[in-house]
Amino acid sequence: MDFSSKLLEQAVDEMSQLPGIGKRTALRLVLHLLKQPEDQTTQLANALQNLRSNIKLCKNCYNISDTELCEICSNSSRISEIVCVVEDIRDVMAIENTGQYRGHYHVLGGKISPMDGIGPSQLNIKPLIEKVKAGKIEEIIFALSSTLEGDTTNFYIFKQLEGTGIKTSTIARGISVGDELEYADEVTLGRSITNRIPFEDSMKE
Amino acid sequence: MDFSSKLLEQAVDEMSQLPGIGKRTALRLVLHLLKQPEDQTTQLANALQNLRSNIKLCKNCYNISDTELCEICSNSSRISEIVCVVEDIRDVMAIENTGQYRGHYHVLGGKISPMDGIGPSQLNIKPLIEKVKAGKIEEIIFALSSTLEGDTTNFYIFKQLEGTGIKTSTIARGISVGDELEYADEVTLGRSITNRIPFEDSMKE
Repeated sequence: MDFSSKLLEQAVDEMSQLPGIGKRTALRLVLHLLKQPEDQTTQLANALQNLRSNIKLCKNCYNISDTELCEICSNSSRISEIVCVVEDIRDVMAIENTGQYRGHYHVLGGKISPMDGIGPSQLNIKPLIEKVKAGKIEEIIFALSSTLEGDTTNFYIFKQLEGTGIKTSTIARGISVGDELEYADEVTLGRSITNRIPFEDSMKE
Repeated sequence: MDFSSKLLEQAVDEMSQLPGIGKRTALRLVLHLLKQPEDQTTQLANALQNLRSNIKLCKNCYNISDTELCEICSNSSRISEIVCVVEDIRDVMAIENTGQYRGHYHVLGGKISPMDGIGPSQLNIKPLIEKVKAGKIEEIIFALSSTLEGDTTNFYIFKQLEGTGIKTSTIARGISVGDELEYADEVTLGRSITNRIPFEDSMKE
């Protein structure tokens, strides 16, 4: 693209570094900001800069946090002996939204993915194993997405935990509530039949 | 969404003010920035802030520019007597990319749209009329998109120019080069037949 303005070109270049934002979209977004009051741009720029400079990772669970210990880890009414292993903060938010979980989390920060050059050492796996070995945890719940990378990561952690005698579980896979059976994929439907639960149990929910 | 971090929440809130960016996309973009080196966020924030604070509109054509007079208006090899009326800088960029136009532009900054509360006074129409009345322009080319708003704006300017005796034209509408006739809409196909040009002329291009 041939810009008449270096300032505009720089802003578009930076904006188009974001994932899924091409040059055209970046130009549209930047032109929008130019039409808005200057305050809006200042607030956006400050919020991003502020976040990047001041954000912390919770020293216990590695979740994104404004403080040394995140709100969940510092909440004494949460059950610290049960730890749900997730990929990132979006998964924490999704599970928190259900209101069904009272334990702690452990945020890995990604999944083992040799294709993307991500090995176990780049993830927060070691501190999890150490927490388990220190005897502070009773149950680990694996809640990574069920992809090749997710399964690999689960299995890697599971092997590392061998001999600790800790209880491990994984979130249930099955047909989504409200979904039609005929549209479900075979793997999910197969698992939901194999892992069927007593009817009385399903009534309790 | 329930964020565990106020900093994160603010960044996502500001990011989701941009058009077409919802809360989920904003979160994805902001988390991406957190995974990148801090420099990237700083550069993005600075580029946006810099653009918003220092950008100018060319005092002749109202195009976005780093200088008082834009590159096109200050280029003495361009024909200042022919002025192409466009909506915004994206149209200028599109026409410049063709390399087929050597005249000046006049950027309106929008189209007359009563539904959005945009009247003639919010657009750069008055300075265009004044330039014409000052006798500096020989031909006006209307190049707004052919929507209801575009046609209204064209017609409004055309009425304002009555009595000045200036030559006005509009860019040709027709079948895109390389397009199949059968997929063209009727209005476009109709216009392209009505406004057919001598075959010899089409050979010159």
